[in-house]
Amino acid sequence: MKVHIGPVAPPELTAAVVAAGAEISPAAEATALTWYGAGPERFAEFDHPGLEWVQLPSAGIEAWVAAGALRDGITFTSAAGTYAQTVAEHTLGLMLTGARQLHAMARAENWARPAGMLSLFGATVGIIGAGGIGRALIDLLQPFGVRVLAVNRSGKPVAGAAWTWPADDEAGMDRLLAESDFVVVAAPATAKTAKLVDASALSRMKADAWLINVARGSLVDTDALVEALDAERIGGAALDVTDPEPLPDGHPLFQHPRAIISPHSANPKSLLVPALARRVEENVRRRLAGQPLLGVIDRTAGY
Amino acid sequence: MKVHIGPVAPPELTAAVVAAGAEISPAAEATALTWYGAGPERFAEFDHPGLEWVQLPSAGIEAWVAAGALRDGITFTSAAGTYAQTVAEHTLGLMLTGARQLHAMARAENWARPAGMLSLFGATVGIIGAGGIGRALIDLLQPFGVRVLAVNRSGKPVAGAAWTWPADDEAGMDRLLAESDFVVVAAPATAKTAKLVDASALSRMKADAWLINVARGSLVDTDALVEALDAERIGGAALDVTDPEPLPDGHPLFQHPRAIISPHSANPKSLLVPALARRVEENVRRRLAGQPLLGVIDRTAGY
Repeated sequence: MKVHIGPVAPPELTAAVVAAGAEISPAAEATALTWYGAGPERFAEFDHPGLEWVQLPSAGIEAWVAAGALRDGITFTSAAGTYAQTVAEHTLGLMLTGARQLHAMARAENWARPAGMLSLFGATVGIIGAGGIGRALIDLLQPFGVRVLAVNRSGKPVAGAAWTWPADDEAGMDRLLAESDFVVVAAPATAKTAKLVDASALSRMKADAWLINVARGSLVDTDALVEALDAERIGGAALDVTDPEPLPDGHPLFQHPRAIISPHSANPKSLLVPALARRVEENVRRRLAGQPLLGVIDRTAGY
Repeated sequence: MKVHIGPVAPPELTAAVVAAGAEISPAAEATALTWYGAGPERFAEFDHPGLEWVQLPSAGIEAWVAAGALRDGITFTSAAGTYAQTVAEHTLGLMLTGARQLHAMARAENWARPAGMLSLFGATVGIIGAGGIGRALIDLLQPFGVRVLAVNRSGKPVAGAAWTWPADDEAGMDRLLAESDFVVVAAPATAKTAKLVDASALSRMKADAWLINVARGSLVDTDALVEALDAERIGGAALDVTDPEPLPDGHPLFQHPRAIISPHSANPKSLLVPALARRVEENVRRRLAGQPLLGVIDRTAGY
């Protein structure tokens, strides 16, 4: 199998393709393309009729959907699941930052102790969109003895969750919002999940609960969130993703006493490439062995 | 058994004493004293010849040692171990803050991404003074698959540690400092541990390693640390305790790009009283049943 890596080819990805037993080739001759280093706007330069499989480098692929780049005749795979542990680690960091007011301490210029300290021990954690990141987060939370409430598309029980509800079960979502000390948003960005966390959802959260968004900015209504934080209606918000993104300079969420902004850093580049290389190697091996690929994109669902 | 709670008696402690089957009484009639709400300077007001047992509310008792308040004829118990989970949770929060540069993100006023992102997955964590907090931290780190290097007084192997060295084994301490991505200080403050982490120790740490102090400020040489941070010789420092403490306003460690100060908040009051109440109830039960108490202070060792 001939694989092209582009537009940019980090040496780790080249090594992964070779280790899996495939050959690196120019784009025009490749049946497989490992995409890295640009968005879908440059895909046409690499596309050709012989192309059968494209491995994308990110878990979220809504930019490719929006650009109409996921054309018929090609199997596209996302990197969904690849970065789950890395993102879950960041999510836990954001949860503990909120719980222990570390954002306020980082900003302090004196020994003042912030109020509002929480503990994860015995807490209830709601995960909206409990897929790979959710499962990895549940693993990390295991020693804290938390109670997990999960919402996913199918409602199929998530291992380690006390309850799992399907996304269209409003009563389930209500319970998740009302009972969770930490509401973690990890669902894909689709038309259905746009502004899923709006003023109404925020008003149903506990008064000291933290909202953590590590999915996509579009899932949270930013203006409604700022209003809820200003009115002290929820404990706080830790956002790795925002709408708009990047958040403009001087936006009230920067340095808000109840918020921390992590600029789309849950899966930082320094930790991303090694993880992607492992997925590329695995999928090239699978393709050569005629086995099902990991992360095949369902174009109808949009992820 | 007659127990007095003072100088301050939070209702949770009163409930714990009663639940354990003892009687609340005035100080002068009590054989047991549950101390809360003041330092050793007020102990003389409550001491009397009939007093047999004093339960102190903190894990570190060096103020009582320094005041000479631990008189003969009384069994003193500290709260050592009581707050281990709470402190370990805070420690993990500080580690993740350093790993993911959350302190820098908290201070940012724009979307800039800080450099120097680390992961706990597969990292090496050195614990200097691996007692109750160390054990609780190892539990929380378990899902990350970290390698733990431990130093404790006896050198008796710590469960979950790849290596355990006794505190007087210089080669062991050297390895811990040289190999750890996170050096966690959790040892008691004694004459022997004063400035244990000095310029020499800091110079032996990895260039991107983080120092986390959740023990006592005296264990770290503050000036040497500031110098090491300014010279970018270590990744950073997260300090729950400092020397001097409180750290004076405007001290360079506040808002240092490589540091976060958590003002002695690993065991915040809101989480402390419920944990102390559980220990008081347990120890009162043990005392009534003639069983050994938890946390009996060794006055020779100083903890």
